[in-house]
Amino acid sequence: MEDLDLKNIIEDIEYLASEKNSRMILNILVGNYPADVAQILGNLSEENEKYVFGLLDADTASDVIVELDDVSREKLVSELQHERISEIVDEMESDDATDLVAELPDEIAEKVLDAIDEEGSEEVKELLQHEEDTAGGIMALEYVSMPEETTVDEAIEEIRAKAEDVPEVYNVYVVDKEGMLVGFLPLKNLIVAQASQKLKDVLIADVISVPTEMDQEEVANIFRRYNLVSIPVVDELGRLVGRITVDDIVEVIEEEASEDMQKMAGIADEEEIRETSVFKISFGRLPWLLVGFVGQLIAALVLFQFEASLKDIFLAIFFIPMMMAMGGNSGIQAATIVVRGIALGELSPDDTFKRLSREIRVSLVNGMVCGLLLFGIIAIFYNPSFGLVLALSMLAVIINASILGASIPLILRRVGVDPAIAAGPLITTFNDIIGLAIYLGLVTASLQYI
Amino acid sequence: MEDLDLKNIIEDIEYLASEKNSRMILNILVGNYPADVAQILGNLSEENEKYVFGLLDADTASDVIVELDDVSREKLVSELQHERISEIVDEMESDDATDLVAELPDEIAEKVLDAIDEEGSEEVKELLQHEEDTAGGIMALEYVSMPEETTVDEAIEEIRAKAEDVPEVYNVYVVDKEGMLVGFLPLKNLIVAQASQKLKDVLIADVISVPTEMDQEEVANIFRRYNLVSIPVVDELGRLVGRITVDDIVEVIEEEASEDMQKMAGIADEEEIRETSVFKISFGRLPWLLVGFVGQLIAALVLFQFEASLKDIFLAIFFIPMMMAMGGNSGIQAATIVVRGIALGELSPDDTFKRLSREIRVSLVNGMVCGLLLFGIIAIFYNPSFGLVLALSMLAVIINASILGASIPLILRRVGVDPAIAAGPLITTFNDIIGLAIYLGLVTASLQYI
Repeated sequence: MEDLDLKNIIEDIEYLASEKNSRMILNILVGNYPADVAQILGNLSEENEKYVFGLLDADTASDVIVELDDVSREKLVSELQHERISEIVDEMESDDATDLVAELPDEIAEKVLDAIDEEGSEEVKELLQHEEDTAGGIMALEYVSMPEETTVDEAIEEIRAKAEDVPEVYNVYVVDKEGMLVGFLPLKNLIVAQASQKLKDVLIADVISVPTEMDQEEVANIFRRYNLVSIPVVDELGRLVGRITVDDIVEVIEEEASEDMQKMAGIADEEEIRETSVFKISFGRLPWLLVGFVGQLIAALVLFQFEASLKDIFLAIFFIPMMMAMGGNSGIQAATIVVRGIALGELSPDDTFKRLSREIRVSLVNGMVCGLLLFGIIAIFYNPSFGLVLALSMLAVIINASILGASIPLILRRVGVDPAIAAGPLITTFNDIIGLAIYLGLVTASLQYI
Repeated sequence: MEDLDLKNIIEDIEYLASEKNSRMILNILVGNYPADVAQILGNLSEENEKYVFGLLDADTASDVIVELDDVSREKLVSELQHERISEIVDEMESDDATDLVAELPDEIAEKVLDAIDEEGSEEVKELLQHEEDTAGGIMALEYVSMPEETTVDEAIEEIRAKAEDVPEVYNVYVVDKEGMLVGFLPLKNLIVAQASQKLKDVLIADVISVPTEMDQEEVANIFRRYNLVSIPVVDELGRLVGRITVDDIVEVIEEEASEDMQKMAGIADEEEIRETSVFKISFGRLPWLLVGFVGQLIAALVLFQFEASLKDIFLAIFFIPMMMAMGGNSGIQAATIVVRGIALGELSPDDTFKRLSREIRVSLVNGMVCGLLLFGIIAIFYNPSFGLVLALSMLAVIINASILGASIPLILRRVGVDPAIAAGPLITTFNDIIGLAIYLGLVTASLQYI
């Protein structure tokens, strides 16, 4: 939806809402995609958002609410009666219903689970068992599966019958008598097959599936690797228990990328772009700021150790920022490539040594370029021997930073910590401390020659 | 594929390749997914990779080659005869064929276009017209479209006929006599519909399409927004000209996220994780390192302006790293949220003021927490008045950094520059210079009280 259209629609609806003209509002909203209605709602005043959402029938409301961002949804839902929530949950697919129920306070959740239809309630309870960020946590129970003895004709009949309940059908999953997944059939293959053939004779047996407990990031990498639109989820015995579709995976990929970026910037909890609570934002960002704070106190102590040298060569002080910054920048560059490679599953543990040796070679080139440049400038405007000390320091600081930047994420992965948290303030702070020690150490060692 | 399996397979194939046992190698590779074969190839020695790839029939080779990472593919293709490339291109879908041809040196590309079948050659030439990072640049010409007068029965017949050419069919696109896109029909709807109905009576008219020149990142946001698995691409007149499937969009999303992260880290060109050329990596990273270098020379000059104050209060020197680092970290935190919000299309230009005011409030909280902490420590171990100067500096530096961090990406977007390039070294360097000036300015102003 274009920004201009959106602005006009919002103005119209704000006006109509103030007039309580519900019929006109629904006239405007009808025929819009749920995502567009959600965007309109998100831009209304809080009071009007609540009013307009209240006008929607349960079916539309259920489509719209899953499209709202987390902050808006949480606020909106917190003001709804549990009867209304139950109506909405009843219209949702199992995975969305589960997400919504999981966000509710316990006593409301219980009331909702009591009020919705029994099948739905069972499904939600089943899905609630799984960790949120795993295949089980994002799968839905709406899929089409059939026994291997079914004929193509019967399968098509079955799809007709199920058409309402399962909005997205790309593949039919085929199971044996024990419920074990034995193959799948893209809809296209079903159309192409003979009516009287049995599924077991036309199925594709080479089916890629994931276990319920697999991390969602790994599931996303499998979608990407094998170009999938949906994937069946199986339990530890290999029985089909759910399905994940690619639209949910697209969300996962965006979410994981945002999370990685935010961790790299030193933000503890994933911060919603539309987050409104200043304290929530602050508390997400403070922890790493404070780690940096402590690190910089140590840096102050490092400088203090070199007080005598600094007094002797006062000029050395002016290049402290440069040594810190060049180390920090080089370290982040190396770390970013490694963190991203790990996240995409493209950097295997075997590559560790290769990656490190490459980073060292790159930092040699970059350190020499920057070092030579600095030497030239200082040699011309001041004196060559101080220029040489600065250039060597620069080279050493950049090499050190690249090694730190590339190795810390690799080490964190090995001990099972998310490498992304390392790539920001942690590496920068380490670099500052070690970089300062290297620089001032070299200055002190060469005091007599400068 | 598990790491352990992979390792064993690679060892086996390395051995078999040294023995030139082509039959055994093919026995191992057959039945593996193209992505897995590509991974195996990527882990072989260069010589063996070439040998094993040479064993694959053109069809398999075409599937495998699109799964190789850019670096491996480029190297492999550069060593193939143009006859072999032509064979492979002939088996590819139009979008992949176009990507491969686009990577070839001009004279080889011409030879290949002459050698492949005429229809394929026309398609590739047509697709080569579009910019690489646009809808037209990633679309394929393999889609199923039918006139609106077609009956459901005829449509199913047509799909049967086209089943070979168009591997992924999720939707049938419906066009009028002029080729204008008028609607679409998911395969499921086709199965559910009556055989004698005309497409125009069962189609979904409310079809989301994109123009050929739309940026691929925007296309990705539309897929995400509307939960799509494929989207039709139309020319400026609204005529159907291509189709984009979600597997390509998943690649785009990963690619754009990697690109953003690398830009934020100050890496000029997107660096491949498996990139092997040290100089290519260096030259991608050097530009922003040098911008930082120049910035830090300016920082040195700033310090030089305050030489007298620094000599008077030598202690002030020890907190230079802290002021720089706290500003840098706060700035990057603010910038990351804004850059990500812009990339996901979740931060509209109208939000600019809201975002800025929120950042200022967050930085007030964080700056006060860090400032108070610093005041406490310095007041206890040294003296309260110097503690106060440090605390106020810290607050001012953090507020300044947040404003810079949030506003620079927003300004860059307005002038049409990718905001991600701003979020790294640029903001850090600005922060260093301004932060130092704020800190030393405050120190100088309060010299007599300390």
